[in-house]
Amino acid sequence: MSKLDHYLQEKKKFVDTCLHGLWDENDTPSEIFKAMKYSTMAGGKRLRPVLALAVAEMLGKPGEELWEVACALELVHTYSLVHDDLPVMDDDELRRGKPTCHVVFGEATAVLAGDALLTGAFELLARYGKREDPLIALSIIDEISQAAGPSGMIGGQLLDLQFEGEEITVEDLNKMHGLKTGALIRASVISGALTAKANAWQIESLRRFAYAAGLAFQITDDLLNISGNPSELGKNTNTDESRGKATYPLLEGEEKACQRRDQLYREALQEIKKWGDDAEIMELLTARLVYRNQ
Amino acid sequence: MSKLDHYLQEKKKFVDTCLHGLWDENDTPSEIFKAMKYSTMAGGKRLRPVLALAVAEMLGKPGEELWEVACALELVHTYSLVHDDLPVMDDDELRRGKPTCHVVFGEATAVLAGDALLTGAFELLARYGKREDPLIALSIIDEISQAAGPSGMIGGQLLDLQFEGEEITVEDLNKMHGLKTGALIRASVISGALTAKANAWQIESLRRFAYAAGLAFQITDDLLNISGNPSELGKNTNTDESRGKATYPLLEGEEKACQRRDQLYREALQEIKKWGDDAEIMELLTARLVYRNQ
Repeated sequence: MSKLDHYLQEKKKFVDTCLHGLWDENDTPSEIFKAMKYSTMAGGKRLRPVLALAVAEMLGKPGEELWEVACALELVHTYSLVHDDLPVMDDDELRRGKPTCHVVFGEATAVLAGDALLTGAFELLARYGKREDPLIALSIIDEISQAAGPSGMIGGQLLDLQFEGEEITVEDLNKMHGLKTGALIRASVISGALTAKANAWQIESLRRFAYAAGLAFQITDDLLNISGNPSELGKNTNTDESRGKATYPLLEGEEKACQRRDQLYREALQEIKKWGDDAEIMELLTARLVYRNQ
Repeated sequence: MSKLDHYLQEKKKFVDTCLHGLWDENDTPSEIFKAMKYSTMAGGKRLRPVLALAVAEMLGKPGEELWEVACALELVHTYSLVHDDLPVMDDDELRRGKPTCHVVFGEATAVLAGDALLTGAFELLARYGKREDPLIALSIIDEISQAAGPSGMIGGQLLDLQFEGEEITVEDLNKMHGLKTGALIRASVISGALTAKANAWQIESLRRFAYAAGLAFQITDDLLNISGNPSELGKNTNTDESRGKATYPLLEGEEKACQRRDQLYREALQEIKKWGDDAEIMELLTARLVYRNQ
């Protein structure tokens, strides 16, 4: 197993254990908790928590010390999936190879479970602040709430719905993805950096890194939707075109999309290399995210 | 105009101005912002902000100093109304005499606007913490996130949906209302107290006050649904019975419900009177909340 695979396995296990502990603790199981647990524990790469942990560790902060922040990022991500999958939104019935939350628990419970996941994220961040550093926790709450809000994920989801079936440009697509998926990826990187008391210059460099890496990650997503293996991906492929969703390969061709991705990858790498030897894991992780096959 | 009316008018104006400022600031108007603004500015008594301000002032903290907390409470309340009104939930088309959010903006936007209001509340609380006291802000975030979560409002809404058309007891009804509306009323009172650096004994007394006052408030809501004036209320009456919603007067008769409300009012008053002369406004406010006609 490669050094990166070992690292990812270890961090995923750590995040899964922490997330599992959130549900164990709770002594009032109800449909909401079942739905929250179902959606949170349905698998997934734990990309956002791992990014926060890896950035924090690159800057010298042990990952275990920010477990609440890592879990909060995954809860925000999961909430957004649960709501985006709703029939009134993207109407998705399959997610990570399993029936989506509203298919299993009904629409009302899925709306409430999403609400509860979002709320739970901020509860966790408050807990982190009481245990570690109150001011840093507030900066993280600020960062994550802006990333999740109308100038972030929610704005991106709205653009996504508005763009469906419309003729849009690559710039529109950049904007939509920069909000819909990019904002929380940036917030994950920045949250990790904040826990390690990064300075303003470091934060700005990491923001540039996360912007480029996040967009490259999304282009790969689009490319995999065309040429990926459905069983490896755990979801159907070729869904974007049939739904009238604009993607990079559809808008500018596969070759151009690959070139765009490669350029963004180089930009991301350039920023992260500033950390020298400490950036080893982050370099490997960036390459994996961009050049993954699932 | 009575002293209380003057106070309420002044505080409502303050809260409305602060809320209005949230939307003015924003330079990227979109459907989401329009829907958020529409639902937030659709009127309403601003009960939760006013409670937070009045409790803070009773304990010696000027209300203007906690405007973010007051607004955050109203945003959380508004988010819950927007989501509860959705067709998959209570399916309400009228709220405060106006078409509900999803009727005007569509269901997808209403889901997203609710999400954005909830997210925006935590962004405001983070801002309060940076400006005033980080640790107190974290305690308020903890308090409000728990009140909004599955052990609070969300759990109450789930019970409400589950109870529809079922035979339930008065204890079930107490539990449901204690979560659905009571939790955020308690959080409003406690948040106000926290900004004024209340001690543990004071917090516990105010929690008992808010529990009793919140339940009495709800019984009055049920009574008004039977005997209130639709044009004064801004919503239809006699809707509970036709929907198979259990209410206090339906379960135990109007007289018994009035007695229960009066008993809770006395309990609330007993707690608040501990603050002596400083409690004048809170005493008047409690009487108004419980014995209102709209």
